[in-house]
Formats: sequence, C-alpha cells, structure tokens
Amino acid sequence: MGTDNIRCKAAVAWKAGSPLSIEEIEVMPPQKGEVRVKLMASGVCHTDAFTLSGEDPEGVFPAILGHEGAGIVESVGEGVTSLQVGDHVIPLYTPECGECKFCMSGKTNLCQKIRTTQGKGLMPDGTSRFSINSQPIYHYMGTSTFSEYTVLPEISLAKINPEAPLREVCLLGCGVTTGIGAVMNTAKVESGSTVAVFGLGGIGLSAVIGAKMAGAEGIIGIDVNEDKFLLAKKLGATICVNPNNYEQPIQEVIVDLTDGGVDYSFECIGNVQVMRAALECCHKGWGESVIIGVAGAEQEICTRPFQLVTGRVWRGTAFGGVKGRSELPQYVERYLAGEFHLNDFITHTMTLEKINDAFDLMREGTSIRSVIHYDQA
Amino acid sequence: MGTDNIRCKAAVAWKAGSPLSIEEIEVMPPQKGEVRVKLMASGVCHTDAFTLSGEDPEGVFPAILGHEGAGIVESVGEGVTSLQVGDHVIPLYTPECGECKFCMSGKTNLCQKIRTTQGKGLMPDGTSRFSINSQPIYHYMGTSTFSEYTVLPEISLAKINPEAPLREVCLLGCGVTTGIGAVMNTAKVESGSTVAVFGLGGIGLSAVIGAKMAGAEGIIGIDVNEDKFLLAKKLGATICVNPNNYEQPIQEVIVDLTDGGVDYSFECIGNVQVMRAALECCHKGWGESVIIGVAGAEQEICTRPFQLVTGRVWRGTAFGGVKGRSELPQYVERYLAGEFHLNDFITHTMTLEKINDAFDLMREGTSIRSVIHYDQA
Repeated sequence: MGTDNIRCKAAVAWKAGSPLSIEEIEVMPPQKGEVRVKLMASGVCHTDAFTLSGEDPEGVFPAILGHEGAGIVESVGEGVTSLQVGDHVIPLYTPECGECKFCMSGKTNLCQKIRTTQGKGLMPDGTSRFSINSQPIYHYMGTSTFSEYTVLPEISLAKINPEAPLREVCLLGCGVTTGIGAVMNTAKVESGSTVAVFGLGGIGLSAVIGAKMAGAEGIIGIDVNEDKFLLAKKLGATICVNPNNYEQPIQEVIVDLTDGGVDYSFECIGNVQVMRAALECCHKGWGESVIIGVAGAEQEICTRPFQLVTGRVWRGTAFGGVKGRSELPQYVERYLAGEFHLNDFITHTMTLEKINDAFDLMREGTSIRSVIHYDQA
Repeated sequence: MGTDNIRCKAAVAWKAGSPLSIEEIEVMPPQKGEVRVKLMASGVCHTDAFTLSGEDPEGVFPAILGHEGAGIVESVGEGVTSLQVGDHVIPLYTPECGECKFCMSGKTNLCQKIRTTQGKGLMPDGTSRFSINSQPIYHYMGTSTFSEYTVLPEISLAKINPEAPLREVCLLGCGVTTGIGAVMNTAKVESGSTVAVFGLGGIGLSAVIGAKMAGAEGIIGIDVNEDKFLLAKKLGATICVNPNNYEQPIQEVIVDLTDGGVDYSFECIGNVQVMRAALECCHKGWGESVIIGVAGAEQEICTRPFQLVTGRVWRGTAFGGVKGRSELPQYVERYLAGEFHLNDFITHTMTLEKINDAFDLMREGTSIRSVIHYDQA
C-alpha cells in the first residue's frame, strides 16, 4: 500500500470547451511530503466550469479538475508526519505551510509555498502523479478531486473530525467556507450590522449564513433570479431585491432601504459592475465591501475615489480568508455543532459518470451544488 | 463684546479664477451655539486653490476661503458651554457634534451634523455672518480663516493647549493632521512596516513624519520633483524615487525594491493614476493603500479586482480620520512634547495683504506651506 500505482476512474478534461471524459487513469504513489487520498465526494463549482470553458488563463489540459472534495488518506509519502492512513481530510487549494513569508505574517491565508507549480498543474517537484497510458495528466488547483484517488502535498490537506459526513463537508473545501469566511474572517461582521449580499448562488447563500451566524440584523439578498429568494430567506435574508424591478441603480435602492447604506457588502458573482454597486451601497464613514467573485482576466473595477475618501473600504477575499489547516477543522466542528447546515446547498447528487450533468445544471442555474458521490469504501 | 458687529480685514474670493481681494468686512456676533474667533494665523492649502480655481463643484462665491487656522475665542453665543473667551482654538472643517449617527458610530470622524449648510457656505441656521455693505459673503468649509475674525459653530472648534504657538499649530487644522492621522489613525501602521508615500508636498511629508513616528522601517518617498527629496529624507524617508527615472511602472519598481511590495501606501496628490499605482505597489496578502488626495469631480480609480481578491485593501481618509474635538488636542500635545516639528513645513510667512503670493508660490511648487500671520493681539 502506498508504493504501487492505483488504477481508478477519473473525469478527464482533455481540452477546453469539451465535456469531461470518464477514463481509467493511473495514480502514482505519494512521493516525499505527499499524501494519496481516496475521495468520497466532491462538489462541482463554477470555478471548475470557468477553467473548462477555456477562459482561465492558468488553465492547462489535459487535466483532472475538481477542488471541493473530501476523502480519506490512503497512503502517505516519506516524511509526512501530520497525517496517517485513515485520516479524514479536506483538500486545500490554498495550502498552509506555516513557514513562508505569507504564513509567517499572520495577516493572510494566501500561502505561497507551492504557488508556482500548483499554477502549472504540477506537484511541487514539477511533475504529475496522474497518467493514462503513460501520458501525464495535469493536476488542477493542487486538488483534482474529480478522481477516485488523488495525490496532494501534506500542506494541502486539512485533517477533520472523522464524525463529519464527507458527502456534505466536502462543500467546506470551497464555496461554503468562502462565503462564511468572507463574513466572519475577512469582514469580521459585528452583531447588529446590516449586510448586503450580491448574488445568491452557493457563495452568496453561504455569506447569508455567515451574516446570520455573526448576528447581523438586516441581511439583504440581491439577485436577478427571484427563484433564489425563498432559500435565501430561509437561511437568514431579511429582504430580497431584484435590481431589474427598479429604475434607479441598485446601490441607490439599497442606500434608501437602509437609511444611508449597509455596514458590509459582499460581491458573490464576479461581475465588475456589481462590484462597484456593492461598494457604493455601503454606508459613508465605515461601510466595507468585500469582493468574493472572480472576474474575467482583463476586467477592471472602477469608482470615484470620493467613495473611499468618505470612509468606505474596498477589500477582497480568497477562500474566505480561512487558513486551511489551522482554521478549516473548526468550521467542520461548528457544522457538527449545528451552527449551520449544508443539506440546503446540495440540490443534486450523482455518480462520477454523470458529472457532465452537474455542469449542465450549473449553467442552467437550476442547481446550487451538485455533489459527486464516489463508492463508499 | 460679542453683541456688536466687528469690522475687520478679510481676503474675499469674489469669483472663481480671480485673485483674492483684501476687503473690510463686517462680522456679525456669534448666534446661539456659535463662537467668534480672532484668528492669529492661517496656512494656505491646495484645497483653497482648488476651490478658487472654480473646479470645486461645491464652491460658492463671493466667499472667504481658508480652513487651516488657529486663533483665540473673542466671544461666544448663547448656550455655548465648552468654550469661553480667551480659549485657544483650531477651527475644524470636520466638526464633532458627538450625537449624530456618524459620531455615535465610533467608526468615523465624518460628523454630518452641519454637512448640508456647511457645503452651501452657510452657518447651521442657513445664513452668513459675513457681509460687505450689507451684501452677504459666504463662509467656506465652515471655517473661513482668511479673515481677521470668523464665526464658527461650537462643534467646529478644538480647544487646545494655550502654550502652543498658534502660528505653527495652525497647520494641524488640515495638512499635517491629515498626513500623520492617515498613517496613525486610518492605516494604523505598525512598527517595522514598510511604507510608500506618493507625493511629497505638505500632506505627503506629514505622512512621512507619521510613518517615522509609527516606527516604520522602510519609508519610500515618491515624487517627480526631486527638490522634495532632501526634506523628505530629513523627516524620515529612507529612500526617495522619481518615477520618471524608470521605464517600468512605478508600482513595479516599488514591488522590486521591497521584495513583494509595501505594507502600507499613501496617495497624497489627488491623481487617479497614482492612486492605482499606490494600491498596486502594496504587498499581496495584506498591503493597504490609503487615498488622501482629492481628485477632480468626474475622475475614477480603476484596478483589476484580482488586486483586492489577493488581499490588498483600498481605503481613504479625510482629515486623517482624526476626530477634531476629542483627538486633535492630543496632536497639539504630541507636538509640544517634541514628537514632531512644524517649522520644516513653513517655508513662507506673510501678512494677509500678501495672500495672493501664497497662491502663486503653491502653483509654482516652491513652497510647502505659506502661513498668513495676523496682527498679534
């Protein structure tokens, strides 16, 4: 165990713009400082679709996509000390090495230890662990969770409570943690605050949950798709508005609704015009807007500097500012303690063979999250 | 005393684009909640020139400009309790009422109690205290310090230590407090930080002083006018760079100089392209940029949202985030304690009759601050 290749199934993205293809692949054993994981579940996220579309400038093919997984350690490579076979883990696309300038700063979760190789679809030693008939297949975001087995650096795995249901907490590997973390970690929303959430997909709904957990009193959900409003309200939104129902810009609508603007806003779409609206609906003097969504490569955000000079703050977040190894396990604990639920997010489940359906559902806007279920061990 | 009009000299801005005119004016006694102040000194600031140019959308004429003064209470109106005749004061263009939503928030210095009337050049009751031959002359920024006497709301005056030399601490009424406060109050620069200051005029040099007071270890001054470098270095800049000496964008130069970017940057010019550079020279993960300069009315700042999503923060500040009545007196105390000096800033002094020379010197870039000296009482 841990010294032989594993043959297993994976969904391979051969090229941009094509559906994924279910293939039998070879997964090499973990090398020094690496861990091989048997995946139990993986969410399918917009970022996977973004890369598959070909718009991601860092996208390389052929690759195994997927970055929102959960699984069990199958074997560990030389020198791995913090994990052992059988541990339950969540793969981290933002690792936490604890020793780079970024980790040492204490100010950010953006560990840069393996940034360069990860961005190229490779393990830290510059090679891949995946192949088909000896042809290397690239990794993706350091995680590649659309495979029955994957290999990750030790620093890219969060060890979690084994009582947590992996088919649900896989969502903490990206979207849900991003949304809740943006509210709790990045913005540090205080009890009694007013909050606006732009975009009520998985991230936005998670931000709504985070706002409720933080004790926000006014939580405004904004989406052009009113089908999202029911769930948003169930999760904590106190009012939902559709910008298409107003002649004024949505920022003015929200300023009017809130006697001057919100204390915090979150952009959960990736639309630069909405990012502007999210900033400008903030209260003069102290309102803070957090960009969560990822915009296209050449797009820019703009506003009048007066917006900032009069006290608004513009910031962004990645993975909700959560440090994966040291902080993500606490999110799992809070989930287990019942502080928030994940079943509302999982609108569809399917086997790996049906993974292209998950992409279709996402494009149609009919799913929040589809979760791939791998065979139970 | 306090019930009659005072006839005195003032520099009147009759219309946009024309020099100021020294006139004999009438200053009414202070009304309810108001205070009449005999000015001892006033700095001349770029904001005065901006309004005089006609570019300020809020500018109204005829008006008495000036907002960086210091003086002595001559009389008080009905109900004034916190000030009495003879108190030494600094006029505040950002008042502090202590009871509006903004003051009560504790999060901002942008008291809005008298915002509307102040913006129209009027006292809170909607009228003016200045006139010439019964023609009302507008107030400016609630302060109008280019006059031997002015009238202000009680909430627009900071009572300071009478030992402080008014001909120097007048600079704490705007520029110096803005620069130091941006560093200490708004950005909260920590000891050991690296800091970039864009623009080495009065505000920028004050930011340099603030950075040094905060214990910053690397303080980079940036200006296209290398004549500014000597004083910047005297005040604490560890290196000064002229963007015109590089082919690369200045943000790249600074990122290279600092192994990834600065911890904090300050834009002290009002140029939206420089605001962008100031943000983009900040360190990934935690760098914060503070906009101090005031841009033209229709201008916009832009950047890629990726800059924020990867951890940079964009904010702004007005009057350095300093609450005028409760915090400015402490700046005077720190000045008296020798923590910083003001004489380096005062390159020219003159009587009110010569005030147009101060505007000329500013336009030519040969002054840091000109200070008008009124007759000693």
